[in-house]
Amino acid sequence: MFKKLADASEASQTLLKSCKPLARIEFLALKHATKRVLSQNLKSPTNLPGFDRAAMDGYAVRSKDTRGARPLTPVYLKIKNQVEKGTCVPVRTGMSASGDADAVVMIEDTILHKNHVEITAEVHPYRNLARVGEDMMVGDLVFGEGHVLRPPDISLLAALGLSEVEVYQKPKVSIIPTGSELVPPFSGKTLQPGQAYEINGLMSELYVNIWGGIPRRQLIAKDDPTVIKEAILSNLDADLILLSGGTSVGDKDYAPPVIDELGKLLVHGMRMTPGKPTALGIVEDTPIICLPGYPVAALAALYLFARPLIKKLAHLREDRPQVEAELTRKITSRPGYLSFTRVALKDGLATPIMTTGAGILSSVAQAQGYVLVPEEVEGIEPGEKTIVNLIE
Amino acid sequence: MFKKLADASEASQTLLKSCKPLARIEFLALKHATKRVLSQNLKSPTNLPGFDRAAMDGYAVRSKDTRGARPLTPVYLKIKNQVEKGTCVPVRTGMSASGDADAVVMIEDTILHKNHVEITAEVHPYRNLARVGEDMMVGDLVFGEGHVLRPPDISLLAALGLSEVEVYQKPKVSIIPTGSELVPPFSGKTLQPGQAYEINGLMSELYVNIWGGIPRRQLIAKDDPTVIKEAILSNLDADLILLSGGTSVGDKDYAPPVIDELGKLLVHGMRMTPGKPTALGIVEDTPIICLPGYPVAALAALYLFARPLIKKLAHLREDRPQVEAELTRKITSRPGYLSFTRVALKDGLATPIMTTGAGILSSVAQAQGYVLVPEEVEGIEPGEKTIVNLIE
Repeated sequence: MFKKLADASEASQTLLKSCKPLARIEFLALKHATKRVLSQNLKSPTNLPGFDRAAMDGYAVRSKDTRGARPLTPVYLKIKNQVEKGTCVPVRTGMSASGDADAVVMIEDTILHKNHVEITAEVHPYRNLARVGEDMMVGDLVFGEGHVLRPPDISLLAALGLSEVEVYQKPKVSIIPTGSELVPPFSGKTLQPGQAYEINGLMSELYVNIWGGIPRRQLIAKDDPTVIKEAILSNLDADLILLSGGTSVGDKDYAPPVIDELGKLLVHGMRMTPGKPTALGIVEDTPIICLPGYPVAALAALYLFARPLIKKLAHLREDRPQVEAELTRKITSRPGYLSFTRVALKDGLATPIMTTGAGILSSVAQAQGYVLVPEEVEGIEPGEKTIVNLIE
Repeated sequence: MFKKLADASEASQTLLKSCKPLARIEFLALKHATKRVLSQNLKSPTNLPGFDRAAMDGYAVRSKDTRGARPLTPVYLKIKNQVEKGTCVPVRTGMSASGDADAVVMIEDTILHKNHVEITAEVHPYRNLARVGEDMMVGDLVFGEGHVLRPPDISLLAALGLSEVEVYQKPKVSIIPTGSELVPPFSGKTLQPGQAYEINGLMSELYVNIWGGIPRRQLIAKDDPTVIKEAILSNLDADLILLSGGTSVGDKDYAPPVIDELGKLLVHGMRMTPGKPTALGIVEDTPIICLPGYPVAALAALYLFARPLIKKLAHLREDRPQVEAELTRKITSRPGYLSFTRVALKDGLATPIMTTGAGILSSVAQAQGYVLVPEEVEGIEPGEKTIVNLIE
C-alpha cells in the first residue's frame, strides 16, 4: 500500500520549485540555433542598413532638386556616378544612395532620356530611402535574455553580421528503464512468455527531444536495488533522471526506497489516474521522476511532471498546445483523483476513449488529446466545452 | 507595373490544386520516425500481450478455486510452479499467468503462509489478468495510412516488435537566392556599400525544416537571366523551388519572365501587403514560389504560399498554431489587399506593431504572431477579438 497519496498538482509544483533553470551556456553557430534560448541580452553590433539605401528602383537624388516637379512641369537631372546638385544616379532597391542623395524618385515617376532623366514627381527628404540604422542602430537591444530564436530572428542576426550566439545549454536527461522482464526494442530478440519490449524509455527519449532536452537512454536495469542504485549514482551529472518502472508497491519495486536511501523521496503515490505509482525525489540536486511501468500511466506522468520540469530547466515556456472542444459523451472520473482522460478530436468535438486500463497503449493511438479532470470534479457532462491538451 | 494583381488566397488555392501529395515512400528505422507520415495501413503482426499476463502483483489462480473466499471464510491454495486445481503461482505485474490460471488475486487480498496462501477475496474469471491480444490482436488495424507518428505511437509499434516503418518521403525544397548585391551569411566577408547578407534563403531553409521538408539551399544566383534559368533547370528534381528576390518589376527582376519562358507563370503580383511582388509558377511539374526580396514580405509569402504547399506535399495537416486575442489598438489595413499584420502578444492582448516597411525585420523580432486582415475588411477595431497566427 502507498502510505499516503499526494495531490498531483501540488507534487508537481514542489518538484518545480526545487529546481532552477540551467545556468550553463554554450556558443552555437547561428544556423543551428532555431528554438534555442538566448542567455544574455543581445545588442546590435552594427547599423542595419549600414548605409542609406534605395527602398525602390529609381534614381537617387537631392530631394530639393525635385521641388515642384509634376508631369507638366518636370525637372531634368543629369545621370552621373555621384549625386550632387542637378545630377542623379540610377539605383535598384537595396543599393547605396551615394553622395548627397537624400531621396529616391521611383522609376514610375521618371522618363529616361539619353543622358538625363525627366522627373515628373517631387520627392520629400528621405522618400523611398532606407536610412542608416533604420532597422537597427548599433547598440540597440535586438533580443532580451530568454528570447527563443525563430527563423526570422536568426535571419535578423545574420543580417547584423553575427554568425554565433550564446544560448543556454539544453538540459541533459538520463533515462533509466528498469525491469528484469524487459527486452530492448529493435534488438531483434523475440519475446519469451513473461517478457515485454522496453518502450517507456523509448517514449521518454522521443519526448525529451521534442520538449527541448538531450536524452541519454541507459541500458535496462534489472530489478535489483544494487543495480538501480548504481544506475542512479552514475547519472547524477544529468539535470534530470527519468526512471521507468519499479515504482509500485510490490516486493520488487525498488526505485522509491533506493531514492529514499540516496537522497530525498519527495512523494510516492499520487491521487491521479492513471499514474498513481508515480514517485518524485531528489538525489544530490538531481531531480528524479519515477514513471509507472504501465505505458499510459507513464505517458500521463511524462506530461504532468517531466514536461514542465524540462521546459523550466531549458528556460522555455510551459506552452501546452490546447484546443477547446465540446464533449460528445460524459467523462466519468474518480473523485479525489486527477484524471488523465484520452479523447479523440474531430471537427471541434471531443470523444472520451473508453478503456479498461493503463496498460492499453492502443487507447492512446486513437487519441489526439487528453482532458485533465481536476480532483474535485466528478465528471464532465456531454455538451460541455472543455480544454483538450494535444498529444504531441 | 504589375499587369494585374491577383487575389492572394485564390492564387494560393490555384497553386495547391496543381500539386499532389508525394507518392514516394521510404523505409525508416522506427526510432527516427517521430512526426513522419505512414504511407500505408499498418496491421498488427502479433498479439499484444502475446500471452495472458498478470495486471497486478499477486497470485495467479483458477478463479473457480476462490469461490466464496472472504476474510472470515478464506480459501487456501498451495504454492506451485504451475496453476492447476487447488494451487497458485506468485506473479508480478506483467508476468505470464501460466497453466490453468484465469485470474490473479491481488497481494492485498492474500496472507502468505509457509507453503500455501490464504485467499481472502473471491475473483471472477479474467480479474487482474490482461488477456492475450487485449491491447492488439494480430491483424488489427493499428494506424491508417496518413497517420502522423507521435512518441506513444512509436512505442506501441515497438511493443509489437516492429523496428522499421514505411513512410512518405519528405518533400525536397530547393532554395535559390538571387541578387548580385547579396553576400552569403556566415562567410566572414564584410559588407561593401550596396551589399547585404543573404538572409531570405536562410530563413526559408530554417522554415522548410520546421514545416516538414528537406531544404536544399543553393549558391546565390546573380541578377542574370541565364544564371537564374540554369539555377531553375538544375533544380527541377525538387518537389518545390523557392526563389528569393528578383521578382519585382525592375529591369533586373528576371525571375518571373524566366519562369514564363521555361514553363507557366501562374501569377505575378498579389493584392497582399507586404508581399505584393510574390510570383507563382510551374516548370515541368515543379511548383516555384518567387519570394519578394524584402524580408518581411518574404516571411508573409512563406506563410501564405510555401507553408500550405509543403504541408500538402508532405501529407501533413495545415494546422496553423493560433490563439484568440483582443486588440489593444486599431489595425489599419489597405482595402482590397490581404494584410499580414505583425502583432505582439501578451496576456491575451494583441498589439499591432507600427512599422513603416517590409524591409524592417526588427518589426518581426518584437512580434509573436500575425493577423491576416481579409481583402474586404478595412481594419479591425480595438477591443475586437481576433485570431492571431503564431510565428513559429
